Amino acid sequence: MPGAYYISMPDIRKRLVVALGGNAISAADKQGTIDEQFAQVSETAEVLCDAIERGYQLIVTHGNGPQVGNILRRVELARSELYPIPLEVCVADTQAGMGYMIAQCLSNAMNRRNLTCDVTAVVTTVMVDADDPAFQDANKAIGPGLTSAQAESHRVRDGWQVRDEGGGRFRRVVPSPLPRKIIEMPAIERLVDVGQIVVCCGGGGIPVAVDSLGRVRGVAAVIDKDRTTGLLARHLHAPALVILTAVEYACINFGKPNERRLEQISADEAETHLKAGQFGAGSMRPKIETAIDFVRCSPHQDAVAIIAHVNRFADALDGKCGTRIVRE
Amino acid sequence: MPGAYYISMPDIRKRLVVALGGNAISAADKQGTIDEQFAQVSETAEVLCDAIERGYQLIVTHGNGPQVGNILRRVELARSELYPIPLEVCVADTQAGMGYMIAQCLSNAMNRRNLTCDVTAVVTTVMVDADDPAFQDANKAIGPGLTSAQAESHRVRDGWQVRDEGGGRFRRVVPSPLPRKIIEMPAIERLVDVGQIVVCCGGGGIPVAVDSLGRVRGVAAVIDKDRTTGLLARHLHAPALVILTAVEYACINFGKPNERRLEQISADEAETHLKAGQFGAGSMRPKIETAIDFVRCSPHQDAVAIIAHVNRFADALDGKCGTRIVRE
Repeated sequence: MPGAYYISMPDIRKRLVVALGGNAISAADKQGTIDEQFAQVSETAEVLCDAIERGYQLIVTHGNGPQVGNILRRVELARSELYPIPLEVCVADTQAGMGYMIAQCLSNAMNRRNLTCDVTAVVTTVMVDADDPAFQDANKAIGPGLTSAQAESHRVRDGWQVRDEGGGRFRRVVPSPLPRKIIEMPAIERLVDVGQIVVCCGGGGIPVAVDSLGRVRGVAAVIDKDRTTGLLARHLHAPALVILTAVEYACINFGKPNERRLEQISADEAETHLKAGQFGAGSMRPKIETAIDFVRCSPHQDAVAIIAHVNRFADALDGKCGTRIVRE
Repeated sequence: MPGAYYISMPDIRKRLVVALGGNAISAADKQGTIDEQFAQVSETAEVLCDAIERGYQLIVTHGNGPQVGNILRRVELARSELYPIPLEVCVADTQAGMGYMIAQCLSNAMNRRNLTCDVTAVVTTVMVDADDPAFQDANKAIGPGLTSAQAESHRVRDGWQVRDEGGGRFRRVVPSPLPRKIIEMPAIERLVDVGQIVVCCGGGGIPVAVDSLGRVRGVAAVIDKDRTTGLLARHLHAPALVILTAVEYACINFGKPNERRLEQISADEAETHLKAGQFGAGSMRPKIETAIDFVRCSPHQDAVAIIAHVNRFADALDGKCGTRIVRE
């Protein structure tokens, strides 16, 4: 039949959405140069290959905190000679630099194991609501530390919101609105449908909103990468979402004598802990919220969201470690 | 039929591959800040919409000269505080920053005209031969001008090749190998097959080669964006390729009293002029070479490659201006 062809879709139940946290990309004890990032991502790629060998089709997202921070520092240091770059364009820049790195390391690792699959990094834009309450409460610190004078200068010249971090140190703060729509979702879906591994939603996505003239425009904000990953996983009807991070388990009473690791809990139990303020706002809370939403919205009764250490990915998939949030 | 579906393919004869030169993105008379780049790309987007309204399906590539130059300058200025970024990662960075900008401006322009089409920017890696003769003859100048001392320091510390440009000014030079394979071609093809507008191959693609251990690795090189665009157009079996630039026509005897603009010429005529050394190595020659290869390799007898000024895109499509290279 000319002008048309069949696509045979890979099994939707094999889809596995994986979010790579900062430590999957730069080791905490290293400075994090590009060579070190490639070395770290190569290790992470081996771990991801373990999942591919188990038959999973991966869709990979990633954070970009240190990388976007370094771009912002470079922009700042070059400010007297070169034009500044808006935050959302810096986020965009990291998507390709890091997407390229992740795709390359993963392809090389697969190649060594005689696994064959195309890997594509997609530049991902994420729509937020222009009236998201987060815009009234900028609280996500980004970029380098600033002196009082630098902070004031940016406030006046660039309209930045800055926060006094104590000790004469200030930082820029930006809103962290909720992701509403992944604009490149049709492209991501199409590539996943034909069996590709897709790297996308880097840094939570490039944040955009509709302005008063109806145009889509970038906004100076940072979207939580775990929340965007959750939205992606729901759209893809994936049965499993794994958030890889620097801890082995989510815990309650974290850091206290009665600290307890969570192994398998229902969405309702997770919500109870959440409401009791058990999870840190900037780190574990969005992961748990994402996990709860994911298992509740999934079309799969046995949907599972896993929070695990990047080095224990395969074990976590086998149910040997990590925190598993299930529907009930 | 579960697990499979039909795709109805848009008409392959409507495919139009368009390469945006630097002036489609930053006006020559402006400093080229991000706001100015968005303004310029918005104008270019209107021109692209004229083609969409004529029924063409666009696949868009773009140069990145000024943008990658600025990233390299920022890296340099921040060198005492922050790790350097290899050239190919800088190229990658520009693909997402610029791909985001082009996709957004194009979507907004289409929206104003009630045209509907998904636009996706794909991070594009391009394989070159590790033994391409270009690696023995680095001649593409990139990045900021250097003093003699800076040039020497980079030569010793970073292994750069530098060229004396006269007047005490030096510049880094890198090889410009031929593009051999667009690694993300399956993804690009799939998105084009379902009717999307794809933005890809930014800056000629992120250059990679296979190293002695069989791994794909980035190389410090720059691939000519017109040559990569030609490779893309051939793979997509597009019947038309348009290279948008800052001049209205390719000319012979350029700048001389007997200068003559070329309107429509065959590939053989173009080759004759090429062999006579009519076209500048760094600018018009790769465009003409790309055009010749394209029309000769195309499965379409009436394939055409057009070199035209960005502001005259629609007129060039209508055959009113620009240089048209045809098979015979």
